[in-house]
Amino acid sequence: MNNKTTRGREATYDLPVVILAAGEGCRLQAGNGGKPKPLTRLLGLTFLERVILSCREVGVREFYVVTGCYEDELIRHVEELARRLGISIRPVHNPNWPDGNGTSVLAVSPYIAGPFLLVMCDHLFDPDILRCLMEATDDGEGCLLAVDPRVDQVFDLKDATKVCLDGRNVTAIGKGLAPFDAVDTGLFLCRPFLFDALAEAGRGGDGSLSGGVRRLVEEGRVRAVDVADRFWLDVDTPESLSVGKKHLLTGLAKRGDDGIISRRLNRPLSRRISQLLAATPLTPNAITVLSFLSCLGGAFLFSLGIYGWTVVAGFLVQWASVLDGCDGEVARLKFQGSRFGAWFDTVLDRYADVAVVMGISYGYWLAHPRPLVWLAGAVALTGFVLASYTKKEYALRFRLQPPGGVLSSLAKRDVRLFALFLGALVNRPFEVMVLVGLLSHTIIGWLFFAVYRQRRRGAGEDLQPVE
Amino acid sequence: MNNKTTRGREATYDLPVVILAAGEGCRLQAGNGGKPKPLTRLLGLTFLERVILSCREVGVREFYVVTGCYEDELIRHVEELARRLGISIRPVHNPNWPDGNGTSVLAVSPYIAGPFLLVMCDHLFDPDILRCLMEATDDGEGCLLAVDPRVDQVFDLKDATKVCLDGRNVTAIGKGLAPFDAVDTGLFLCRPFLFDALAEAGRGGDGSLSGGVRRLVEEGRVRAVDVADRFWLDVDTPESLSVGKKHLLTGLAKRGDDGIISRRLNRPLSRRISQLLAATPLTPNAITVLSFLSCLGGAFLFSLGIYGWTVVAGFLVQWASVLDGCDGEVARLKFQGSRFGAWFDTVLDRYADVAVVMGISYGYWLAHPRPLVWLAGAVALTGFVLASYTKKEYALRFRLQPPGGVLSSLAKRDVRLFALFLGALVNRPFEVMVLVGLLSHTIIGWLFFAVYRQRRRGAGEDLQPVE
Repeated sequence: MNNKTTRGREATYDLPVVILAAGEGCRLQAGNGGKPKPLTRLLGLTFLERVILSCREVGVREFYVVTGCYEDELIRHVEELARRLGISIRPVHNPNWPDGNGTSVLAVSPYIAGPFLLVMCDHLFDPDILRCLMEATDDGEGCLLAVDPRVDQVFDLKDATKVCLDGRNVTAIGKGLAPFDAVDTGLFLCRPFLFDALAEAGRGGDGSLSGGVRRLVEEGRVRAVDVADRFWLDVDTPESLSVGKKHLLTGLAKRGDDGIISRRLNRPLSRRISQLLAATPLTPNAITVLSFLSCLGGAFLFSLGIYGWTVVAGFLVQWASVLDGCDGEVARLKFQGSRFGAWFDTVLDRYADVAVVMGISYGYWLAHPRPLVWLAGAVALTGFVLASYTKKEYALRFRLQPPGGVLSSLAKRDVRLFALFLGALVNRPFEVMVLVGLLSHTIIGWLFFAVYRQRRRGAGEDLQPVE
Repeated sequence: MNNKTTRGREATYDLPVVILAAGEGCRLQAGNGGKPKPLTRLLGLTFLERVILSCREVGVREFYVVTGCYEDELIRHVEELARRLGISIRPVHNPNWPDGNGTSVLAVSPYIAGPFLLVMCDHLFDPDILRCLMEATDDGEGCLLAVDPRVDQVFDLKDATKVCLDGRNVTAIGKGLAPFDAVDTGLFLCRPFLFDALAEAGRGGDGSLSGGVRRLVEEGRVRAVDVADRFWLDVDTPESLSVGKKHLLTGLAKRGDDGIISRRLNRPLSRRISQLLAATPLTPNAITVLSFLSCLGGAFLFSLGIYGWTVVAGFLVQWASVLDGCDGEVARLKFQGSRFGAWFDTVLDRYADVAVVMGISYGYWLAHPRPLVWLAGAVALTGFVLASYTKKEYALRFRLQPPGGVLSSLAKRDVRLFALFLGALVNRPFEVMVLVGLLSHTIIGWLFFAVYRQRRRGAGEDLQPVE
């Protein structure tokens, strides 16, 4: 495909997408209070909203939503989404929806003259699968179908549409195929000749999308694109809905830069909290501010220098650390991530750390009024801030992540705040803070030493002009 | 050319370079104590060393140095350079050097089978000119000659080699041409057929490079590449040597990110100091450490809380600020810039700031033993560090420089240290420090506000996943 542009580092594309949302979806309604399937909410977003945002993430700017059953409710929702997201979505009504989902694809044929993406509104999927479809090399003569060869991992395999393959060519498609090579994910990159195939299948009495695709398969015009381990799920039943929810939540933890406390303690907690927060209108930035306010509260209670309040302060600080993971999680769950949010979060974290250090130092100074307390506090404070600063500077200068390792992960915020929490429990927050601060400085020194040595070894590698 | 690779963001190339260093250079020796011209030192580097480093900066890894007059001294120097810089340089002796510089080019013909760069060891030049030559579109049938059409700005125009142009084709070349369109800079991208042309010219009694080039010009095989405002200088006399020196020094100040104090006060001073430092074996990193130690000294004197010492501390801190410009300047003068050095410098600056704040706070606390002093000190300290941190984070997240403006430039280190210097003179370093710290926090807040507003205006622009 040549519709590619590059924004930031992610490639994006500008194909239109057709979203099929015309069916009745009665199997899911059992666990859903009778709501239309596209309006089912999952982790703060309706099915339709999630599909639209997934497509927008890869650059799609032109949306067609085919309605059938529940037309009015869907159109109201589409209008609300278009307004809220600031995008244009054209609802297309298919009065023949009971004849099969192929008729719904046919309903958009007056509007589309070139290649387009075709997705089902009841599928959860990793947006990268759409990128795979758009990046697949292609002679322009076929439809591309994303397929999953890991058949043993497909949920509800019995109900899935199967395909047989010969290299990249799809040679057969159907629910009852046996044997088969892979499973149809319901994600397509189509071309207008699909409309002719659907019309022909319809005239033969088969109004399903599979019917039209089967005709193209017979002509050898459907190519398979492997989704290669990426997540997708056809949600038809309350059981598959819980599987999808679980997957989206566990997917949140896959962050390479989590520290040990984050990974083992904070993430399992924050995932549960994010699940609740996603259902509220709270934005990720609002959650960032909540986490900051928790730290400020903790800092104030530390400054009283009273054991009982110190313990409460410790819990507040550890709670802030957990909440600090939720902003990013909710952002990822609801496609609300932004560079601004990430920047805001990181800088506010530093301010929160400063407040906590000042609170702890003041609390300790009340009992030990010596200037050394303040000097030690300043050492801790700069250790906390500069550990982060040094890594950021490295990333900026070298355009690489700084060398990691166990030592480096000890200078992370999750570990630091957890140490303060433990220190608060045993009424030694100041001592722990100073120790962690000194450790941070040591780690900064180690980082310089490691990079310096590495650079000497690879002599000449680094002789680039300073930018 | 297709010898291009990309390292970091700068394109580099792997053509060999031939450096002509066989001549006698007697005109320069008058002001030089009779040293061979290639060994003349300018701002810490010999001519030959500077030419080699300029070539290495654009990716050249294969060096041929043609010697003639002063063969032994040159070979010793070449061997020393090869060892010190960790590169391979092949010296090629040309016993016929008195017959003209064309014979020196001919001397490398046994070693070179493809395109190569040809430069004179007595030319100062911006390495970007070599990039221009290598990036010029080219049919592979010609030699490329870098020419300068700004003839009114050429030093010693009378002695320069001139060219006439027809589009990109060079139609005539010679010292005595009139009228002419541009001046030959002495920087070439050649191909082996130049050797045949030189041999032929030599048989006709003309041993000069110009003689060989003139034959190619007659065949229509020399193309001009415009150096487009980039610096180059043929250094033949003591006068041109001072012009070159002056240019290299003033070029140092061209840094977009200098604050107002840096530009107006620190740079004019640091340039003079860098000129002296370049002649010493001090590395840029050593200068970074010297600047840091000055700040530490200042911090200690501030902590005494005695007016006389406070003034000295103020001078030390301002001196450190000037010296902070020298590391980068020396690095650029001597091609010693490195990502490590830039990283080290920036982090050490933050440590120096911390030390100064602690010193000033302690000095003030001696006379005003209240905890509020320490809290105000902490506010100032975090303002200093986080102003820088916030900008770095922005650059990392957005891959852009943060919005600038007068307000933003007030949160820079040169302004901050100069304010502390002035504060020290009037015995109010603490008050000034707290004010500047508060100003820094204000600027951080303003930066967030500005970016937030800009982002709202460009709605949808920023909806990229957080990395």
